Amino acid sequence: MIKKEVQIHPTAEVSNTAQIGENTKIWHQSQIREEAKIGKNCIFGKNVYIDKNVIIGNNVKIQNNVSVYDGVIIEDGVFVGPHVSFTNDKIPRAINPNGSLKLEQSDWKIDKTIVKKGSSIGCGSIILCGTTIGRFALVGAGSVVTKDIPDHALVYGNPARIRGYVCICGKKLQPPNSSESLGYCNDCKISVTK
Amino acid sequence: MIKKEVQIHPTAEVSNTAQIGENTKIWHQSQIREEAKIGKNCIFGKNVYIDKNVIIGNNVKIQNNVSVYDGVIIEDGVFVGPHVSFTNDKIPRAINPNGSLKLEQSDWKIDKTIVKKGSSIGCGSIILCGTTIGRFALVGAGSVVTKDIPDHALVYGNPARIRGYVCICGKKLQPPNSSESLGYCNDCKISVTK
Amino acid sequence: MIKKEVQIHPTAEVSNTAQIGENTKIWHQSQIREEAKIGKNCIFGKNVYIDKNVIIGNNVKIQNNVSVYDGVIIEDGVFVGPHVSFTNDKIPRAINPNGSLKLEQSDWKIDKTIVKKGSSIGCGSIILCGTTIGRFALVGAGSVVTKDIPDHALVYGNPARIRGYVCICGKKLQPPNSSESLGYCNDCKISVTK
Repeated sequence: MIKKEVQIHPTAEVSNTAQIGENTKIWHQSQIREEAKIGKNCIFGKNVYIDKNVIIGNNVKIQNNVSVYDGVIIEDGVFVGPHVSFTNDKIPRAINPNGSLKLEQSDWKIDKTIVKKGSSIGCGSIILCGTTIGRFALVGAGSVVTKDIPDHALVYGNPARIRGYVCICGKKLQPPNSSESLGYCNDCKISVTK
Repeated sequence: MIKKEVQIHPTAEVSNTAQIGENTKIWHQSQIREEAKIGKNCIFGKNVYIDKNVIIGNNVKIQNNVSVYDGVIIEDGVFVGPHVSFTNDKIPRAINPNGSLKLEQSDWKIDKTIVKKGSSIGCGSIILCGTTIGRFALVGAGSVVTKDIPDHALVYGNPARIRGYVCICGKKLQPPNSSESLGYCNDCKISVTK
Repeated sequence: MIKKEVQIHPTAEVSNTAQIGENTKIWHQSQIREEAKIGKNCIFGKNVYIDKNVIIGNNVKIQNNVSVYDGVIIEDGVFVGPHVSFTNDKIPRAINPNGSLKLEQSDWKIDKTIVKKGSSIGCGSIILCGTTIGRFALVGAGSVVTKDIPDHALVYGNPARIRGYVCICGKKLQPPNSSESLGYCNDCKISVTK
């Protein structure tokens, strides 16, 4: 299932049930697990972990030491900064109340997390499961994302709060001049509509 | 000292002076250093680092990219989320005031950190040394733990503050109906006593 | 260009265009990229990533899972705690506004980050690019550094704010007794001047 043009570093490990699109590069010690579906032209840095069943689109960049867990969907053109981690359990426990080891999947329900087209997640951010990050949103470095983020929103902090809106290019929008607009980008000379 | 039933990935490195209990699994690139003592039925994810002299109980789950340093004791049934790091020096410096390189151990005293039975540490949290995390406490994702956490406490934030109390199962307790109780769990139908 | 006395773990990868000073140790899975310049007596922990063109002085300690990106200069005697990440792009995007994949360097300008002599960066901190961390400053664990930090400042939090001043030894200074002083160190018996 791995296309010829895919570049996998010798220290990386890719499951033979994973699908990887053409021109995708997978660097040192990264691991792609069973049934993961990854698009084309993606770049995975050093020590990236893609759990089983994760779905990733085209033109996605995932930097060093990122962990993406089962239940996460990442759409086209998303940037995931270094050291970002997703989660897939809101109430993590190693053991059940009776003291037995909690097993994967059989003992808990996974909440879906969606990262929409063109958005960026800054360095070291943590994304709680069950959230959706909107199209072209920008999550600042060191954020803890605990709830849904609207399209084009700029958020940061712990917990992450909305601090403004950004253009497709990532630059902060000037205040909107109509109720249908999120703001105006001085660089792109466009008004971004809601 | 490594039992036959222990599963160690070929890319992991386990010191031959470390003790590992039966049925424990150690995954990709993880490293267990000299004199570490690890119980049975534990799972260590990818790129976990267990420093020398660390003590870990039974049924402990440690996720990807966790660093546990000398001076840390982790009791039975603890969950340590991805990207968590412990520390063992409150005033880290690379050099002494005279400019010479600070050497390990000879030049500083290690503060003990204790993570008690059944507690959970959420994704990306940082645990300052010299702290104790109470039994069945729940540290939310992205927390910076700077002081002791009582049994069953739910804490989160930077710095982590008490936000409520949780059951053995991890669910938030309803307000207590007596001064001896921390609260009532609607799921487990039990009152948790202080 | 790699001196004989340099100690490189077999699982580490060092570019043959990188310069490494004598007595420097590079541990498991660490990677030093092209044209990086590293001084002597340094210690790089497990899974450290040093990007191309990074400059690092002598007697520097870099702990596990640290990522240092192109554009960062680290002076002599600096401590970089575990899981710290630098950044080199204030507005990260995977794609250009026209939808094409953003390429390295050709498509963005790197902001320089400088970490001055003798300073320390606590565990899990994130350093935004374009900032300078002053001499002997101490960045507490879990900080997000968003602006310049003066010499000897103690900062922590998200975002990191000044909370006091520290000595060369790292201990907190007592209030100053003159306008030229930052404070007095009870341990070193010295007054630190501005």
